[in-house]
Amino acid sequence: METARAITEMKVRGAPAIGIAAAYGAALEAFRVRKKPPAIRFQAMEKAFSVLAASRPTAVNLFWALERMRRLWRRTRTHPRFFVFMENEARRIHAEDRRLCEKIGRFGAPLLKGCKNVLTHCNTGALATGGEGTALSVILHAARKNPKLHVWVDETRPYLQGGRLTAYELACAGVSFHIVTDSTAGALMAAGKVDAVIVGADRITRNGDTANKIGTYALALMAKFHDIPFYVAAPSTTVDLSLRDGSSIPMEERSPREILEVFGRPWTRPDYPAFHQPFDVTPARLISAVVCEKGVLKPPYRKTLAKLFHKGPRDGRR
Amino acid sequence: METARAITEMKVRGAPAIGIAAAYGAALEAFRVRKKPPAIRFQAMEKAFSVLAASRPTAVNLFWALERMRRLWRRTRTHPRFFVFMENEARRIHAEDRRLCEKIGRFGAPLLKGCKNVLTHCNTGALATGGEGTALSVILHAARKNPKLHVWVDETRPYLQGGRLTAYELACAGVSFHIVTDSTAGALMAAGKVDAVIVGADRITRNGDTANKIGTYALALMAKFHDIPFYVAAPSTTVDLSLRDGSSIPMEERSPREILEVFGRPWTRPDYPAFHQPFDVTPARLISAVVCEKGVLKPPYRKTLAKLFHKGPRDGRR
Repeated sequence: METARAITEMKVRGAPAIGIAAAYGAALEAFRVRKKPPAIRFQAMEKAFSVLAASRPTAVNLFWALERMRRLWRRTRTHPRFFVFMENEARRIHAEDRRLCEKIGRFGAPLLKGCKNVLTHCNTGALATGGEGTALSVILHAARKNPKLHVWVDETRPYLQGGRLTAYELACAGVSFHIVTDSTAGALMAAGKVDAVIVGADRITRNGDTANKIGTYALALMAKFHDIPFYVAAPSTTVDLSLRDGSSIPMEERSPREILEVFGRPWTRPDYPAFHQPFDVTPARLISAVVCEKGVLKPPYRKTLAKLFHKGPRDGRR
Repeated sequence: METARAITEMKVRGAPAIGIAAAYGAALEAFRVRKKPPAIRFQAMEKAFSVLAASRPTAVNLFWALERMRRLWRRTRTHPRFFVFMENEARRIHAEDRRLCEKIGRFGAPLLKGCKNVLTHCNTGALATGGEGTALSVILHAARKNPKLHVWVDETRPYLQGGRLTAYELACAGVSFHIVTDSTAGALMAAGKVDAVIVGADRITRNGDTANKIGTYALALMAKFHDIPFYVAAPSTTVDLSLRDGSSIPMEERSPREILEVFGRPWTRPDYPAFHQPFDVTPARLISAVVCEKGVLKPPYRKTLAKLFHKGPRDGRR
């Protein structure tokens, strides 16, 4: 299935964009099988849902979006126009994400007030979401109020999403930035050249532990050591209340080739062994605040996250 | 001058190899001008020394080797066979470095006793020194005693010396390893998969602060946080007693192109701004031990380094 392959091969990437793409993927499948006999149609849709769910393991927005599409499918599958409902639902998920981005930016911007230099990792803008982004939306909103804001853009190995995509988004928005290698943050922090770090998230557990692009944990540790605030920006769909803490987040392991090659060209012997884990987990205690579309959450996240979903801290999945 | 250009363009790199190459560069120049009239010869040699000294600013071995060659030149410059003395001195510097490597490896290996997984950064082996290396010599000596030792090799952006050169050296030696991106160390440490970190050094100041490849500081911080020993291995020629601490080490800034291109091929828009500082400073308090050819030094380095050179802690340059 094309959509699932695009997600697996990272043609679509970024937790919110993955969720949106998966929703459209389910809608497309519904359209494709709309005239098939019910038994075949049901089988095809079930298969589509499971193939899409297996495309990437770490970002929870994928499962959230698929769950929503699946619920609709179950409700409408005997209706002759079920495929139209499916398409509309995917469009709704997309439009909602656009609004979430706007709100995240608006709520988060005050956190960067007075900052000269913000550091970000990976890509969290229009190319990763349905709108202006998560962490990048916060940066863009802050830059509108403070045009002198300067952004350190981690190149973000191995896929270089920071240096390719975030740099592009900032250049389009006219925000000043410099690309740095991922290992430069420490020196910049030690030199007093980083006032805040803000990143996105692929999954946030009940206690606030956050899975995000590999290297995020190192940034959070270093920020803590240098007494620099470390923020996570993500829609509430990134929160997975079913998981107690970061140790239970499924961790993807991807092909070593994605490390040993840059755009299909090997830069070392392609048969050398390499280990490629694209995400890591940042413990909640290193996170100064989580910005979502409903506001800015502070620790203790077990409490503030539960409150967000109007649940007690031990209620489990919403 | 070819040798200086090779150093500036990083065809020769690695602090000890830079020192050795510079010594040979001075010897070559002496050979080239051996039949010139004294005045021209003197002028050419003075120029060669200053061009070589300007080739890279951070590694102190360069200045140490040049100082030694210059002293010999001043003593022998009126002798008809001065150029032979110069060549012999360069060969001596080279041979001495080979022996230093061997001793560093022998003294350092016991530090890695009982380790399953060692992490290293950049390149510190035969391709960076006159012998088996500094940090890599320690790893090779340890691996001979413990053939199950496994090495995490930081790819080391932007020049990828780890993934290209260290991987090659380990593969040649039959030591098991995996290449990882520079931002992976944190996740490996958190997972208990790193028992020690060992790196080389480009300059060590009187108090033990150490300049080394960008990213070393982050590794040292993370190792501290995870209670993992962090070792520096370097010949005593890397120690610069004239500098009080890391803040006075000259920090090179190199072209952004070296970040935005991999082997001359841009991976993002080549006109995007990038910041490229190839070294950072690791404060002495994060360093568990310094291995040199005279033994293993422990904190307080101000004392142990001074003792190494038979000087009081405030005597300044040896």
